[in-house]
Amino acid sequence: MTFVPNSIITLTTDFGLDDPFIGIMKGVILSVNPDARIVDITHGVPPQNILAGSMALQSSCSYFPKGTIHIAVVDPGVGSNRRPLLAVGDRYAFVGPDNGLLSPSIQSQKDVRVFHLTESLFFLKPVSQTFHGRDVFAPVAAWLSRGKAPEAFGQLIEDWVWLHWPGPTRSAEGLEGTVLRVDHFGNLITNISAADLAYLSTSPSTLEIRIGKHTVHRFCASYAEANAGEPFGIMGSADLLEISVKQRSAAALLGVSPGEKFELRFCLTEEALR
Amino acid sequence: MTFVPNSIITLTTDFGLDDPFIGIMKGVILSVNPDARIVDITHGVPPQNILAGSMALQSSCSYFPKGTIHIAVVDPGVGSNRRPLLAVGDRYAFVGPDNGLLSPSIQSQKDVRVFHLTESLFFLKPVSQTFHGRDVFAPVAAWLSRGKAPEAFGQLIEDWVWLHWPGPTRSAEGLEGTVLRVDHFGNLITNISAADLAYLSTSPSTLEIRIGKHTVHRFCASYAEANAGEPFGIMGSADLLEISVKQRSAAALLGVSPGEKFELRFCLTEEALR
Amino acid sequence: MTFVPNSIITLTTDFGLDDPFIGIMKGVILSVNPDARIVDITHGVPPQNILAGSMALQSSCSYFPKGTIHIAVVDPGVGSNRRPLLAVGDRYAFVGPDNGLLSPSIQSQKDVRVFHLTESLFFLKPVSQTFHGRDVFAPVAAWLSRGKAPEAFGQLIEDWVWLHWPGPTRSAEGLEGTVLRVDHFGNLITNISAADLAYLSTSPSTLEIRIGKHTVHRFCASYAEANAGEPFGIMGSADLLEISVKQRSAAALLGVSPGEKFELRFCLTEEALR
Repeated sequence: MTFVPNSIITLTTDFGLDDPFIGIMKGVILSVNPDARIVDITHGVPPQNILAGSMALQSSCSYFPKGTIHIAVVDPGVGSNRRPLLAVGDRYAFVGPDNGLLSPSIQSQKDVRVFHLTESLFFLKPVSQTFHGRDVFAPVAAWLSRGKAPEAFGQLIEDWVWLHWPGPTRSAEGLEGTVLRVDHFGNLITNISAADLAYLSTSPSTLEIRIGKHTVHRFCASYAEANAGEPFGIMGSADLLEISVKQRSAAALLGVSPGEKFELRFCLTEEALR
Repeated sequence: MTFVPNSIITLTTDFGLDDPFIGIMKGVILSVNPDARIVDITHGVPPQNILAGSMALQSSCSYFPKGTIHIAVVDPGVGSNRRPLLAVGDRYAFVGPDNGLLSPSIQSQKDVRVFHLTESLFFLKPVSQTFHGRDVFAPVAAWLSRGKAPEAFGQLIEDWVWLHWPGPTRSAEGLEGTVLRVDHFGNLITNISAADLAYLSTSPSTLEIRIGKHTVHRFCASYAEANAGEPFGIMGSADLLEISVKQRSAAALLGVSPGEKFELRFCLTEEALR
Repeated sequence: MTFVPNSIITLTTDFGLDDPFIGIMKGVILSVNPDARIVDITHGVPPQNILAGSMALQSSCSYFPKGTIHIAVVDPGVGSNRRPLLAVGDRYAFVGPDNGLLSPSIQSQKDVRVFHLTESLFFLKPVSQTFHGRDVFAPVAAWLSRGKAPEAFGQLIEDWVWLHWPGPTRSAEGLEGTVLRVDHFGNLITNISAADLAYLSTSPSTLEIRIGKHTVHRFCASYAEANAGEPFGIMGSADLLEISVKQRSAAALLGVSPGEKFELRFCLTEEALR
């Protein structure tokens, strides 16, 4: 199956929106391909946080039409010998640094070929050592969107960097999970997936979450069904367990930041213990 | 008069820009209608604040060309039995939750028909209970922009929720108003309109504003004509009375937040009292 | 050489993204020219900071294709007698207030003609005294993008306002520079250019930076080659000297804000002194 670009190019970075970095990348793309249609996924990835960037990209890339090119730049190693990559699959292409950022998204593709971007013909010259988003990734994506063949950009490689997301671990009484990030509403997004919960093959009513000094007993199917001020567990829109408080910030209320560990325990009833 | 879409779809939400939510909605729209042109109005509505969201939408929707589809999502009731709506008028269509958010904008239209979105054929499946922006509103707007007839999406209803903006009340010496929001520059946007002031049929020179411990005597026609550091009243770009400080944040300087009440008084001169 | 618009219109403002201001400007543009393609450069210019706005525009405008129209609005004088401008060069057109904001970008063009926007036919009526972005600059740029001749918009003028960026000054032992802004990563962007350094005709190894209580000895070609936690100098992507700390905020770590002066000294070795 060949990748056929559809003129849409998305951007996922940790550049923020207060500097002209993103505007510059868009100018570079449009200078190469005036017909490109550029869509921001987010530029609010926490600075240098490759894990968070990989989650943002992986959780959104598949909602785009077939033929979309996804640029992602969270790139603490810019200017070092980390390679710039192009990965082309059956549905999407990905352009960005070889630091694991793209790997969970690449994994979701079939027939993937990964290229080390070596053909400087497609770069902005001189290539800086500080801004490959502008000098390498934007122009390569733009040339690809114009129909340039993927193999024109460099050598096929197989040893690109994999990023393994930290999964939950089995604990004596259930699972130990980690808070991966806090969203705009203060919901705590965890690393426990719907599949992990299914594996426990137990009803939510027999579960509890112990996080910091708090114990969460309630599991809800929607924010609306929760009680005001009471923390609850919910399967969020990315199919990950979230800890939330209705119309409040769970992060603020529970005093929790990304990285915090918690326990998801089987809460055995007295009946069950007898 | 029939609504004819023009391929422009706008987005107004409280989702912020640091998560991939908005990128995901754009991907869904473009997957249904690759020719859609998506414009962000704002994603900085304060979380869950339906009033603020309705103001953002109402104050901007009419600047768009006829045939624009406006999506708005401030949706604390997502997952409950609050209905998803499509409202189609002579100039614009609106898509969002039935919680009052759309109502002031709908009011500004002629020949409005409002539909309860029940036709799940146009939804992303499975429909989550936490992210109808992605699963319901984005795909419905995209299908509408492709020319699907409004009646295809659900039942015509008449009992949709109205949101009444809190207007000023008459006080002994003038009007009691409320600060509705604080803009990016720290200007205090109030609920007193040009029409309210015209009703007072008095010249601004005879007015004063009492807010917190401060009394504002000056009314200006432009920011530039004010004196540095001195608070003043001004009719802002949304035709609402604003309280401002030149090149400073009035909110910070006066210590005022949204919700604060103030008095707009007739400041009777000694002459008038005699 | 005549300016031929390419349908791309960029926006650079201090309006932020939490209010509907930018959405409104986009609606106005699309109402005049439904085929306009609008690109945000940044809306995070610090409020009223003309210098910062002029840097954002100047550092990004030239990455766009020939025929792009750049709107910039940082406009503390809105509503006063400051003039609204259109400047048309060989590659780009610029629309904004006559307060110096556009001048460094105009300078980079050939065959520039500058017009005082007086033809109110192209304005949104009534023209407010608080929001010329909406009422003057957006519609003028949109009409220009539709092919309206520049001279249709007003009178040719020559006495438009120039903004002189504060350059470094010579000091006893090198140069005195100023921190112009802090970027999203906390890098300190200074007013010392690659050309200024070349003029010193000395190798970076003989330089040091004294800023606040800190002395910076290291100069790096990339962020990656620096040592963790150690401040270093680097030529940034805008060809200006930056002071950085690897994977940290130099601004936070060194306690430095925009406006801070520093010294770039020849660090004479003992050998050289003998």
